[in-house]
Amino acid sequence: EIVQAIEAALKQDTRLPAPEGLLASGGALEGLHVVVTSGPTHEPIDPVRYIANRSSGRQGHAIAAAAARAGARVTVISGPVALPDPPGCETIRIESARDMLAAVEAALPADIFVAAAAVADWRAEPAVDKIKKGERGAPSLSLVENPDILASVSRGPNRPRLVVGFAAETRDIIRHAQEKLARKGCDLIVANDVSEGTGVFGGAMNQAHLVSRAGVEDWPRLRKEDVAERLVARLAQLIGGEMS
Amino acid sequence: EIVQAIEAALKQDTRLPAPEGLLASGGALEGLHVVVTSGPTHEPIDPVRYIANRSSGRQGHAIAAAAARAGARVTVISGPVALPDPPGCETIRIESARDMLAAVEAALPADIFVAAAAVADWRAEPAVDKIKKGERGAPSLSLVENPDILASVSRGPNRPRLVVGFAAETRDIIRHAQEKLARKGCDLIVANDVSEGTGVFGGAMNQAHLVSRAGVEDWPRLRKEDVAERLVARLAQLIGGEMS
Repeated sequence: EIVQAIEAALKQDTRLPAPEGLLASGGALEGLHVVVTSGPTHEPIDPVRYIANRSSGRQGHAIAAAAARAGARVTVISGPVALPDPPGCETIRIESARDMLAAVEAALPADIFVAAAAVADWRAEPAVDKIKKGERGAPSLSLVENPDILASVSRGPNRPRLVVGFAAETRDIIRHAQEKLARKGCDLIVANDVSEGTGVFGGAMNQAHLVSRAGVEDWPRLRKEDVAERLVARLAQLIGGEMS
Repeated sequence: EIVQAIEAALKQDTRLPAPEGLLASGGALEGLHVVVTSGPTHEPIDPVRYIANRSSGRQGHAIAAAAARAGARVTVISGPVALPDPPGCETIRIESARDMLAAVEAALPADIFVAAAAVADWRAEPAVDKIKKGERGAPSLSLVENPDILASVSRGPNRPRLVVGFAAETRDIIRHAQEKLARKGCDLIVANDVSEGTGVFGGAMNQAHLVSRAGVEDWPRLRKEDVAERLVARLAQLIGGEMS
């Protein structure tokens, strides 16, 4: 695996401070494949309208970059974001939740799956033509439940050894995260408060709680890059402990 | 008015090729105030989700810039776009249709109003908390009709002398534009085909039809900047004819 990591590092663009940086940071995820989802999804309503959300992709992209720095081969499945692709990762851009699920399934098998994207729970059944204002006032938009990517991966035949979900909540953060952990069958939930005024959604900072069956770690308010470093360090510990 | 225009030009940043360019382009809109709306609106569903559309703001921003080059004082009311503010204009950024209407009303009186924004016809009645997935499946989203900015301005007490609407259609383009002209009480409709495959929405090119009570002009497929130049030239003709 060390040979593979060095070979991989040597294949990288020489302008990147890759080989030394990679080995210096411990290469704690060397030889492992990490799949990360990031950003929002866009769900079409008709040819011009869509449902979106305020996810910037900053947290997911930072996790992908941190995992790559730790030596992992990283595949990022990203919704529409205004960010550059995270360095050292293979980035696949999609729009809708269904496209994201297909891209994730195509990227498996993996050792670690981090579902950081803010996937739309629902989509509208899209209209072929632009919906027009009628005489009878506003229509009601029928929503259809989207596939549950986290649960699909977590309960699927190619389940990675570590599956990490995110919970963006506006109240009862820890309780909702614990319920989500059980319902989705994943190993960890990174829970955060996205209520108005926190500036987490779309912002630079994050205050996270790491929820597992073992308990809850409350992390301080950190830059999203630092949350990413911490999370990758914990993932390396957990997967190292499992392998040893 | 010429003195005002020269003073205004002299006030501009000297790195801009402003004074000569402005006078060379005829200053056909000198002394006039033009209000342009541009871009999409974002309509919140809850603290994290919103309804958006694929408008890039390119056409509206190009019209604003062209009007400023023609000597007008230009106020742009823009939804969320990834573009720089158009040069020589005062740009006000808003998110929702209701905020756009309020900003337009605050910007009046004006001589010309160009409603190039892709304003959401409907909004959801926003939830205070993030809507959660329930056990009973997907919810139905109740939509509420947004204010009609074009009709409000066109039929309002501060009606500009020229009111121009846009019609983004996927079929029966001309007929829908003629109906819209009558229904909204405006003077011109710039109609275009936004069906999938045309690449107009979000793209660089536009194929426009200028619809008035006098008839229809079919314009060739042009860059959006050239559509803007043509439209501003026609507006100068029309308002000049009206004033003389």
